[in-house]
Amino acid sequence: MMNTFYIPPISSALDQVIQEKINLKTKPVSSLGKLEEVGATICRIQQSLTPVLKAPHILVFAADHGIAAQGAVNPFPQEVTYQMVYNFLSGGAAINVFGRQHDISIRVVDAGVNHDFEEVPGLINTKIDYGTKDYRFEKAMSTPQCLQALTEGATLIEDIISTGCNVIGFGEMGIGNTSSASLLMSTLCDIPIEECTGKGTGAVGAVLQKKIYALKEAQSFHGNINREDTLEVLSTFGGFEIAQMCGAMLAAAEKGMLLLIDGFISTAALLVAYSINPSTLSYCIFSHCSEEQGHKMLLKYLNATPLLNLQMCLGEGSGIAVAYPLLQSACAFINEMASFQEAKVSNQE
Amino acid sequence: MMNTFYIPPISSALDQVIQEKINLKTKPVSSLGKLEEVGATICRIQQSLTPVLKAPHILVFAADHGIAAQGAVNPFPQEVTYQMVYNFLSGGAAINVFGRQHDISIRVVDAGVNHDFEEVPGLINTKIDYGTKDYRFEKAMSTPQCLQALTEGATLIEDIISTGCNVIGFGEMGIGNTSSASLLMSTLCDIPIEECTGKGTGAVGAVLQKKIYALKEAQSFHGNINREDTLEVLSTFGGFEIAQMCGAMLAAAEKGMLLLIDGFISTAALLVAYSINPSTLSYCIFSHCSEEQGHKMLLKYLNATPLLNLQMCLGEGSGIAVAYPLLQSACAFINEMASFQEAKVSNQE
Repeated sequence: MMNTFYIPPISSALDQVIQEKINLKTKPVSSLGKLEEVGATICRIQQSLTPVLKAPHILVFAADHGIAAQGAVNPFPQEVTYQMVYNFLSGGAAINVFGRQHDISIRVVDAGVNHDFEEVPGLINTKIDYGTKDYRFEKAMSTPQCLQALTEGATLIEDIISTGCNVIGFGEMGIGNTSSASLLMSTLCDIPIEECTGKGTGAVGAVLQKKIYALKEAQSFHGNINREDTLEVLSTFGGFEIAQMCGAMLAAAEKGMLLLIDGFISTAALLVAYSINPSTLSYCIFSHCSEEQGHKMLLKYLNATPLLNLQMCLGEGSGIAVAYPLLQSACAFINEMASFQEAKVSNQE
Repeated sequence: MMNTFYIPPISSALDQVIQEKINLKTKPVSSLGKLEEVGATICRIQQSLTPVLKAPHILVFAADHGIAAQGAVNPFPQEVTYQMVYNFLSGGAAINVFGRQHDISIRVVDAGVNHDFEEVPGLINTKIDYGTKDYRFEKAMSTPQCLQALTEGATLIEDIISTGCNVIGFGEMGIGNTSSASLLMSTLCDIPIEECTGKGTGAVGAVLQKKIYALKEAQSFHGNINREDTLEVLSTFGGFEIAQMCGAMLAAAEKGMLLLIDGFISTAALLVAYSINPSTLSYCIFSHCSEEQGHKMLLKYLNATPLLNLQMCLGEGSGIAVAYPLLQSACAFINEMASFQEAKVSNQE
């Protein structure tokens, strides 16, 4: 499994002509700032001077976490995971609102929610189990489960591709999953767990201290883990939504799609994908810097500059949806703005 | 003129119920960050729990500057101002592209361009003169011209209001107008001119030093100016586009519209409006922090936090247009997201 993703490095053949096209638009050089970088990135991924975003999708992976069933890390009860899945399906969540705003298709994936859903239109069932185990006392998932989750995630991409989609965002829902993301980050980046752990859905003060304590317990129990063994780290501390997201990211990069990364948990899933295959990173655009402790540092680790800094920390892919029109702007200026010559405007003297 | 704007302070009567509505949406408290603040601001301005943005417009005020005719501050030739007006009218500029993307009506205003335009559809002629005078040697405009510019700007709002518009952005074009903005900022905020002066359309290195030197000359020539006399400061260092923008801002705030501020020059015009009537500020949302030197400090002076930080510095209202979907997101989540009760999702324990 781990070696089956072939992600081609992106050719630099067009880099110069892309930059020339951008520089000859009727504006001072670089005056569209980060939009110019984003536009160039999309051109490079698509190997085109006329970038286009087609049939955008956001996958929202949902799953439960053993540790959350014990209330060890989370101020919201675990039932909120499945309740929010119903909210996604009935269109009342933030991601639905922002998805509708920008014509982004939202697909909800039951990667491992602790609930039996009836057959509901719009819900994709790739459930691995009814939540992970509590990693304070055992591995979150078995190695076969982890491989299955990666495969299920990758398989989802086939179906999405068939819609003509070339841009895909990765969101999630799962009470307790900031804890999993913090452990993955701490282990893979070798950063102390305190620096990787934040309030999640609202763990502040004593609740945050309790959360950090629980995560230290988990690290101590798995003290001998080999941090170079990404699959082992993912099985030990991951969630089913994170593992499926990771598989989907690898498959999407393999297909040459543009990958949109959301907040802390989405970025942690990318960190795992990056550890499996570093080329994944060059297909990514980072939508926003989350207010969640650890995200800024994780972005720095990946040398990533996000588009937005709006102190959001909701997950679901909400940051991706909100940032999406900036990607459309980046494509639009490259495709539609007049050049100095076309507009008969004098260039710099 | 200066006392004829009556801008009502915004009532705080609904503040609590607005915040409650936001807090009961299916998300952790504050997890939409800055979008929640923006949503609340729009609710307050509109005194409504169901905020709506209607018939959005961006006015692009264009004018020329006496100092630019001499090439004292600008790497682009002065003709670029009128050439860019034609580019706006034919739809090839950045503001056209982004305006089309978000269904924002763009109106171009000849506030004082050094060119005779034929009757062109889409161009509003409120020309005061063929550019200002060179403020190194005399006042940029006479006091009557300045009053006329404020009045012309204010009058434009009447026409815009008749379209049903309740949200209006202020952009500009004018070779040399960062210099005018720097002088206004330096004088009104009492900050040294070096800190207020940046590259504009591309003044770097020796060209930037020459620009700062020219602006010091201007300050020295008008050494006795009374910085408390806003109208005098505006007449001395302003541009016709800045003065008309200022009048339009005051009139729009008087009508209770939502005002969208762009980059450095747009914010400098607001600074003048704020000096005339501080209540203007509470009707404003700041779209982005420009890469232009001085803008960050000016925003801080106005205690303003912009939505975007994309290192843009193009003007034209481009930052407003690019940020506009975030305002739509802010309204949409308030209007469309389910509450915990509606979605039957458990709230925090």
